[in-house]
Amino acid sequence: MSEIPYKIYLNESEMPETWYNLRADMAHKPAPLLNPATLEPMTAQELGGVFCEELVKQELDETTPYYEIPQEIRDFYKMYRPSPLVRAYCLEKKLQTPAKIYYKFEGNNTSGSHKLNSAIAQAYYAKKQGLRGVTTETGAGQWGTALSMACAYLELDCKVFMVKVSYEQKPFRREVMRTYGASVTPSPSNETQVGRKILAEHPDTTGSLGCAISEAVEVAVTNPGYRYVLGSVLNQVLLHQSVIGLEAKIAMDKYGIKPDVIIGCAGGGSNLGGLIAPFMGEKLRGEADYRIVAVEPASCPSFTRGVFAYDFCDTGNICPLAKMYTLGSSFIPSANHAGGLRFHGMSTTLSQLYHDGFMEAISVAQTDVFEAAQTFARVEGILPAPESSHAILAAMNEAIRCRESGEEKTILFGLTGTGYFDLVAYKQFNDGTMSDYIPTDEDLQISISKLPKVDK
Amino acid sequence: MSEIPYKIYLNESEMPETWYNLRADMAHKPAPLLNPATLEPMTAQELGGVFCEELVKQELDETTPYYEIPQEIRDFYKMYRPSPLVRAYCLEKKLQTPAKIYYKFEGNNTSGSHKLNSAIAQAYYAKKQGLRGVTTETGAGQWGTALSMACAYLELDCKVFMVKVSYEQKPFRREVMRTYGASVTPSPSNETQVGRKILAEHPDTTGSLGCAISEAVEVAVTNPGYRYVLGSVLNQVLLHQSVIGLEAKIAMDKYGIKPDVIIGCAGGGSNLGGLIAPFMGEKLRGEADYRIVAVEPASCPSFTRGVFAYDFCDTGNICPLAKMYTLGSSFIPSANHAGGLRFHGMSTTLSQLYHDGFMEAISVAQTDVFEAAQTFARVEGILPAPESSHAILAAMNEAIRCRESGEEKTILFGLTGTGYFDLVAYKQFNDGTMSDYIPTDEDLQISISKLPKVDK
Repeated sequence: MSEIPYKIYLNESEMPETWYNLRADMAHKPAPLLNPATLEPMTAQELGGVFCEELVKQELDETTPYYEIPQEIRDFYKMYRPSPLVRAYCLEKKLQTPAKIYYKFEGNNTSGSHKLNSAIAQAYYAKKQGLRGVTTETGAGQWGTALSMACAYLELDCKVFMVKVSYEQKPFRREVMRTYGASVTPSPSNETQVGRKILAEHPDTTGSLGCAISEAVEVAVTNPGYRYVLGSVLNQVLLHQSVIGLEAKIAMDKYGIKPDVIIGCAGGGSNLGGLIAPFMGEKLRGEADYRIVAVEPASCPSFTRGVFAYDFCDTGNICPLAKMYTLGSSFIPSANHAGGLRFHGMSTTLSQLYHDGFMEAISVAQTDVFEAAQTFARVEGILPAPESSHAILAAMNEAIRCRESGEEKTILFGLTGTGYFDLVAYKQFNDGTMSDYIPTDEDLQISISKLPKVDK
Repeated sequence: MSEIPYKIYLNESEMPETWYNLRADMAHKPAPLLNPATLEPMTAQELGGVFCEELVKQELDETTPYYEIPQEIRDFYKMYRPSPLVRAYCLEKKLQTPAKIYYKFEGNNTSGSHKLNSAIAQAYYAKKQGLRGVTTETGAGQWGTALSMACAYLELDCKVFMVKVSYEQKPFRREVMRTYGASVTPSPSNETQVGRKILAEHPDTTGSLGCAISEAVEVAVTNPGYRYVLGSVLNQVLLHQSVIGLEAKIAMDKYGIKPDVIIGCAGGGSNLGGLIAPFMGEKLRGEADYRIVAVEPASCPSFTRGVFAYDFCDTGNICPLAKMYTLGSSFIPSANHAGGLRFHGMSTTLSQLYHDGFMEAISVAQTDVFEAAQTFARVEGILPAPESSHAILAAMNEAIRCRESGEEKTILFGLTGTGYFDLVAYKQFNDGTMSDYIPTDEDLQISISKLPKVDK
């Protein structure tokens, strides 16, 4: 056994005191969000009607490399951070690989994922601005749970619009949010104008993320003292999530470990952008080199089969346009797809970095992902979230290639969360009834052909 | 903020290398298990037909104070241990108490509780003995999950009889076990003689723990290469669970913290016995004094309303008799009671200690427990298991008394697990439909009057 422990926990004094803003080191900055009405870059004032002031500042700031993490947020982080950096000794043994595999495990908190890192930050700035509460949407429920926890801690009102089909099929996620004092409304609802309109037109609809976003934004902008918050895609979210990568890097530096490959799952980019932040920073500054790999589901392959273009962030087409890798905002991943990572687009920052050749992307099929998840669970003990298991599969494949080539690569991947609320999907896998869905070229051509015409 | 961190993690080099056998320091040893046919103490040979050899030795050994933890088990422990000792700064602030509250959190593993500490030990000794597999029963499913994880790691066959009503109402627990490769059978089943007999007599039964034990034992004793394992009550389980208390004590000693009161929830005693072990040892040896408090549900009050007598450990009356605080083996806690802690009896070791005045016991009502759980979740972030929340409530009440008296007591309690699979109960609480059940004196008189007549 090596002298490197199974799990590296930083001391509280070693924990990061700043977040890192990756954009500061990018030569090509991500393209600005555009106002959907004017197609001009969104101003701070326009964004301020929807988001908190400090978060708007963070969203637009392309030059400040480090933001001090407020003491109150650091105190909250101490309740569930530092997260462990784990050496996957048992997985290495199982794969008989000379590779050294590490994972940064973000699932050891009640939200079950890394989402809490940004939820507490967004709730904190809302509280500091004197707001009464925040609104958001949630699909699978990780983000809604995280936000509920942060709001309970800060005694801030939290209103979650939960996609109706998830509200009904994931009653336990809903109960966690209610236990933390959030109000959870199935969307579409009668509480908003947009909800009533949709219900009148489609009384039997089971809802969509796009509709839930529209309802959450409407409540935020029409109720004094409320703002809207979002758990992925945005630059501010990547900023807060950089705590993942910063902790990982401090821990690795402490033991003289340098990863050759860094692997993360990618939906909207919140985890991947956070995990890679300081490593990508070194790469951008020419101080070090790393292979960085985004892993996305074959059923929603934004990077690997999408186009780099301006598109709406929501299916309802009311949100700003972002320049990103996208499958088109009308693309809806198959209901057959079990986990998250269902977003048609991608963080603008990660999109620019991918476009500029600083990272790779691969897509993987669902049944292979669950096969990897099962293997990982049995040898490493942790039951992983389906999202995280995309990264597990890619890391395992990398380690198997090392077995074949004899290379002793060091692999770091992000284990974003646990699968305790994803057991319907595990049951499908255990029963042998899970299948894969890969969109056809025709499917993608249709949704991509509907992209808005933007001459930028 | 004090210099004591929010969470104290031991370094791997500081982790205990031995388990502590509390019985070695007891002047009055717990009474021996009796053979239900002969009413004579069970011999090693008799026990060896059901349990692994090494575990029989541990079960009967009243004199060896320390057992070295085999390296393989210590390696497994490193995958999810050390568990953090957490200073509940936010709970203290919420309660405005001068008390200092610490909790030892055992929920950060996929089984969701401390049960894994003994599961891996029992599976290890089965493997070492060259057995093919183990059988067990599970009700709510924490123990079954833990055993499945341990068996997957050691590539040992694992057969779980799950009380039929739980099998149907807790499908997610069942899927976790299946994901770890265990076979999970609803009990009563057609796979055993006893199961077929019960089904013939009561075709519509939803099963009971007593019946599931009978089936698991039958499969173990009739299949070569199998033994039966149990997750609580037994001395061997308390031995393995002593790792909880040992880690807590090492962490507290490291920072010069001495608890005044130690609080744990009590069902069969696995957690409480483990948490208090080294502290109780000091108390028994006259080296230190601590108040030690067992907290049990008002719906199943073995310590506070039971009698100290020989009784069957199972409702089917096929297992050995144990001298313990018991409500009578025919006592069935109300179905209304949400969590675990449903056992009619109690660890013989803890029973003797309670009888000899070394610890206190209180009982608490279910709705108060969930009220405390909700408060705790909101300020400390962790969604606690209903079982653990009994200890939370007692610790909070102790801290509130300190606020009133001005005493700066140091309180340590065991947070045994998380409530992710208990959300049906949380929903009842959130909906205001949860109620309390407290057995009447007449109820208890009936079940206690049926105790076996044993002249020891």
